[in-house]
Amino acid sequence: METKTLVQNIMKTKMSGIPEEVKLHGKRSLFNWMGVAIGASQHPSVDMVLGLKEDINSAEQVSIFGRTEKVDLLLGSLINGMSSHIFDYDDTHLDTIHHPSGPVAPVVLALAEKFNLTGEQVLHAFILGCEAELRIANAVYPSHYHLGYHITSSTGVFGAAVAADILLELGEEQMIWALGIAGTQSFGLREMFGTMTKPFHPGKAAQNGLMAALLAKKNFTSSTEVLEAKRGFANVLAPEHDLSKVNVNWGGQWELLKNAFKPYACGIVLHPSIDACIALGKQMKAGDVERIELTVNPYVLELTGKPTPPTGLAGKFSIYHTGAVAFLEGDAAEAQYTDGKVIDPAVVEFRSKISPKVDASVKEEEVYATAFLKDGSTVEHVVKHATGSIENPMTDEDLARKFNNLTHPIIGAEQANKLRTAMYAIDEKRDLSELIELTKAYSEKVIN
Amino acid sequence: METKTLVQNIMKTKMSGIPEEVKLHGKRSLFNWMGVAIGASQHPSVDMVLGLKEDINSAEQVSIFGRTEKVDLLLGSLINGMSSHIFDYDDTHLDTIHHPSGPVAPVVLALAEKFNLTGEQVLHAFILGCEAELRIANAVYPSHYHLGYHITSSTGVFGAAVAADILLELGEEQMIWALGIAGTQSFGLREMFGTMTKPFHPGKAAQNGLMAALLAKKNFTSSTEVLEAKRGFANVLAPEHDLSKVNVNWGGQWELLKNAFKPYACGIVLHPSIDACIALGKQMKAGDVERIELTVNPYVLELTGKPTPPTGLAGKFSIYHTGAVAFLEGDAAEAQYTDGKVIDPAVVEFRSKISPKVDASVKEEEVYATAFLKDGSTVEHVVKHATGSIENPMTDEDLARKFNNLTHPIIGAEQANKLRTAMYAIDEKRDLSELIELTKAYSEKVIN
Repeated sequence: METKTLVQNIMKTKMSGIPEEVKLHGKRSLFNWMGVAIGASQHPSVDMVLGLKEDINSAEQVSIFGRTEKVDLLLGSLINGMSSHIFDYDDTHLDTIHHPSGPVAPVVLALAEKFNLTGEQVLHAFILGCEAELRIANAVYPSHYHLGYHITSSTGVFGAAVAADILLELGEEQMIWALGIAGTQSFGLREMFGTMTKPFHPGKAAQNGLMAALLAKKNFTSSTEVLEAKRGFANVLAPEHDLSKVNVNWGGQWELLKNAFKPYACGIVLHPSIDACIALGKQMKAGDVERIELTVNPYVLELTGKPTPPTGLAGKFSIYHTGAVAFLEGDAAEAQYTDGKVIDPAVVEFRSKISPKVDASVKEEEVYATAFLKDGSTVEHVVKHATGSIENPMTDEDLARKFNNLTHPIIGAEQANKLRTAMYAIDEKRDLSELIELTKAYSEKVIN
Repeated sequence: METKTLVQNIMKTKMSGIPEEVKLHGKRSLFNWMGVAIGASQHPSVDMVLGLKEDINSAEQVSIFGRTEKVDLLLGSLINGMSSHIFDYDDTHLDTIHHPSGPVAPVVLALAEKFNLTGEQVLHAFILGCEAELRIANAVYPSHYHLGYHITSSTGVFGAAVAADILLELGEEQMIWALGIAGTQSFGLREMFGTMTKPFHPGKAAQNGLMAALLAKKNFTSSTEVLEAKRGFANVLAPEHDLSKVNVNWGGQWELLKNAFKPYACGIVLHPSIDACIALGKQMKAGDVERIELTVNPYVLELTGKPTPPTGLAGKFSIYHTGAVAFLEGDAAEAQYTDGKVIDPAVVEFRSKISPKVDASVKEEEVYATAFLKDGSTVEHVVKHATGSIENPMTDEDLARKFNNLTHPIIGAEQANKLRTAMYAIDEKRDLSELIELTKAYSEKVIN
């Protein structure tokens, strides 16, 4: 019954019944998502997926954010969903390591563009799509993730389908079928991490979920109990699961409120050290520093112990490089992880001063930092919860700075500013044509 | 290494190295597949998936067999792959319950149509695509199937990718990536059986595999060990597996030779009884029969014990209806399983004379039939291996009769005859334009 109950819960949840704080966090999530999607839009892998446009002679129905090309509804969902995950910089539901916007946002925005939907419809479908996929993720986490599934795509396909169901106005039976068509297409191996196929996952989940809704709308039949059936999603893809989590306290508890944003363009284990090094960097000159000791949980150094990263991407797995750029430049955005940055003489010199130390009594989300100055004095900085954690969320100003860093090189400061305003007022828009116009790149190819 | 070795095996297997009997069986498989694809092409579910053409304004690149519409390469692979599985009447690799042509044939034919490939290229890619997916299926069967995966799509996606890789002329590294992009998209829950989503599976596997090859051709990166990695295909989707089966005795043993064809449009457990009833029907008049006793394995009656099936589809699960039509009409094709046929007075009368009896000592693939005539005499007929089994394969004449039954209502006898000749000579064709022209329906809508 969990599948049917979920559909009934979704159908009874109108925009008027969604708390204001959830709506605001939904807008934040969409805004953050748009920034990372535009930010990665010039990546070579986006060019490759856009090559499919020529292969299938795809119709020009919807926009690719940060570009000037248009493609069809299904291909557009794939490409926009992919670009948003390329930098590993999108949102995270920390309980399940799920990136909820990736599979859902491209679908609601593509449908809005094609069918001239209102911003309120878009936000409503986005919130419920995220809520559905996160609750399904709760039900199968952690066994499903540990088995090897990239939970963002494997459960995200449900979120994409739910969002599309709402916007395409499916009936109850159709929506149940759509979950069946979506759920049977659940996919995504963690083995793909570190390759272009990882960000392909949320994009393909978006496309699969949208196709499921389009088919169910035409009365294409499917299972009516995809979640709970003997050979359904949970039993086949999750050795242990608790499907009661799908519908528990629906409307009282919102999983979307637990969606956190990454301030920095690297793995979350380095974020406390970045906060600390930024704080120290504001208090002293690089030339005065002898070394900076960072006491972290052993797991942190296990993941990020590369002292001399050869590429920008490898720099994301180096506490030395990351500490240095955070101290010197006050940030750890994509600009701090270019191939040029890891061989920048000032960075190379300073990273030798970063001195990590492990201590099992230090939690993963903590760092105890001490700057030892050449004059013999020391400055300490302790981070208990890094920026971007649930306890210490990014402020709207933090989010704006991240958005600007990502989008200015592509759409320019003025347009980025207008886009930010538009995203926070999305639910007041009669249609999204102006907003989507603001996502377009200056020209065919703004970078390189 | 299994992934890389598989790719190397595929790349070194040129058409000249494939035995003649394998080539012939490949042509038979393609021919049988085309018949079932055309046969089901007017099904309502095909109309629904064709509705996606309008949704995405799909380009007219490739043909839908048995129809007149054209759609783009990716959508065409989905639709043709789906229609071929609608009647559950396609080919079967009995060792793994895999229907190998479904995910592969639509891809090779779509690429041939778009890129004007030769028939020899098509047959070569088809044979190797089937061989790859069947060997991967061998490696994960039965645990993968028992867990709940529809093995035709979950391993078929590899076959589709391999076939497309060959036709798109990918290099070794690209082909390895294509298997990664394909394998991470492995999907298909057996829970979907009995709904339109079941035949959707091979079609979507075809589409996913083709997309994987198109992307890898553009150097879209992926895992290089999708089959064997810790969080790769086999470990995540099959509790028990033996990956040595993927490459064992490559070129010496051909899995495609074990591909069997269904003579009758119902589950394989009824095929011995059909053979027996057809044989008895040729020897006596219906009016002379008092009853026909069919002694079968208990499992057969468990699956097919419906005495009064309300619909044609339910008739496929009734030994009474099936025995009656086989006796009276000498066949058990789609025409014997219409909603009208199960209420046909002659069939209804005769099915009461079908008298099944269970005996655990009778094997599933056997039947001991005895006709008790009104004059007191009896006629016995024993089937040890039904038509369509490996031991008693369908002859080319049997296949032609099946093909004609399926295709005549849609493309007409003359065109069907030409198409059959063309399919058996496919490897002599410089291009497939004429062959594909022969797959087209008379008019927009030939049935209803």
